[in-house]
Amino acid sequence: MNIKVFATPREWNEDDVRGTTAIVIDVLRASSTIVQALTNGAREVVPVSTPAEAGEFAAKAGRADVILGGEREGKLIEGFDLGNSPLEYTKERIGGRTIVFASTNGAPALVRCKSAEHVIVGSFNNFSATVNAARELGRDVAIICSGRNGKFSMEDFVCAGKLVEGISKSNGPLDQDGAQAALDMFRYYRSQIVEVVRGCFHGRFLADAGFAPDLEHCARVDSHQVVPALIEGKIKIQRQNGGS
Amino acid sequence: MNIKVFATPREWNEDDVRGTTAIVIDVLRASSTIVQALTNGAREVVPVSTPAEAGEFAAKAGRADVILGGEREGKLIEGFDLGNSPLEYTKERIGGRTIVFASTNGAPALVRCKSAEHVIVGSFNNFSATVNAARELGRDVAIICSGRNGKFSMEDFVCAGKLVEGISKSNGPLDQDGAQAALDMFRYYRSQIVEVVRGCFHGRFLADAGFAPDLEHCARVDSHQVVPALIEGKIKIQRQNGGS
Repeated sequence: MNIKVFATPREWNEDDVRGTTAIVIDVLRASSTIVQALTNGAREVVPVSTPAEAGEFAAKAGRADVILGGEREGKLIEGFDLGNSPLEYTKERIGGRTIVFASTNGAPALVRCKSAEHVIVGSFNNFSATVNAARELGRDVAIICSGRNGKFSMEDFVCAGKLVEGISKSNGPLDQDGAQAALDMFRYYRSQIVEVVRGCFHGRFLADAGFAPDLEHCARVDSHQVVPALIEGKIKIQRQNGGS
Repeated sequence: MNIKVFATPREWNEDDVRGTTAIVIDVLRASSTIVQALTNGAREVVPVSTPAEAGEFAAKAGRADVILGGEREGKLIEGFDLGNSPLEYTKERIGGRTIVFASTNGAPALVRCKSAEHVIVGSFNNFSATVNAARELGRDVAIICSGRNGKFSMEDFVCAGKLVEGISKSNGPLDQDGAQAALDMFRYYRSQIVEVVRGCFHGRFLADAGFAPDLEHCARVDSHQVVPALIEGKIKIQRQNGGS
């Protein structure tokens, strides 16, 4: 099983993910928030690239029948119901609902993965569930770091490295430099996940914006057991560790 | 002094390097080859994005008055005089000559740095000279990893991290995730530079293509003392450690 890691959004194209199990990571915060929303009973999450596309979807589906979630510059989008903090996505707010989701980095990455065979949403929160799913699916793996505004993000790269360690069956060097570097970066920070998430650029930005509790939440390994999968434009729970 | 590292070519644009000292790295092999060529007395190196542009330049300058160097897929380009092995750029071949240089990754990165205040060519070979130049110039630094076909390259990232360690005056965490990650990657591999250069994807590719001696050459720290600088489209020696 070949594993590749793409550290930045413009490094990969549809050929790089074709036929793979693509794992899209946006630790701060889209992938953590999607994991949280589905755990808390959202019916489905529909990722879209822009707020305007979210509006179009809502117009067709009926505005009252969907929840609009996401952010620009980390903040609630005008006219939207929820931002991009996983802590907003409570059972009461989103249980049974369809969420149309327009975050800056993670949502467009998910939308771009069309040529992958499977697209799953990975984070520290659902780490082991993601590893198990990728191993069971048995295909080559492309781990997509969403990054931040097109740039490299430390927290996504360290999470990618942890997934490489979990998924890889080899102890030898990895063929692709991105996967090897992510693995090495995870090894360097192995016991300091929460410090990485607090200390990275985006973590400091979010703490300044009042979202410090999100950092603790997003750094928690295996707090959730769901594997969200994108099928025909909608993200739903594909499987749940330990049953259902 | 702010230091940024861009791990992959499409991660940065002209705004990211504007006003900075940009250091372009392509360990395997463009930046190592340019350092070698200028050390061995080439008059100047003119980086161009494509073989066709090299041909146009040669047509204007007079074909006999220039040397065409570079590679596609690691190999000599049809009609060119030299490939991209630093070992080809001997005093006898290139002393006093103008080299028009079309490599796949490093040359286009150099061409794209127009908005930087200074553009210098960095490698393991001229590590200390590059560090000294960047510190003396005193501007913010943008370290550009050329990568390979748009993708992440381990050897460039480790070299970038070594430059960050040399240039940075702070012991604390760095503001930009790319610079911090490169520095951490260098720390992880500190005493294993030659192993990194041999073991990375591009190193294995070049060894398979018969260029194993290039790897030893390109991994050598401080074998050269020149700082090549790009000024008005031409790379010349800007300064030489210890004089001239």
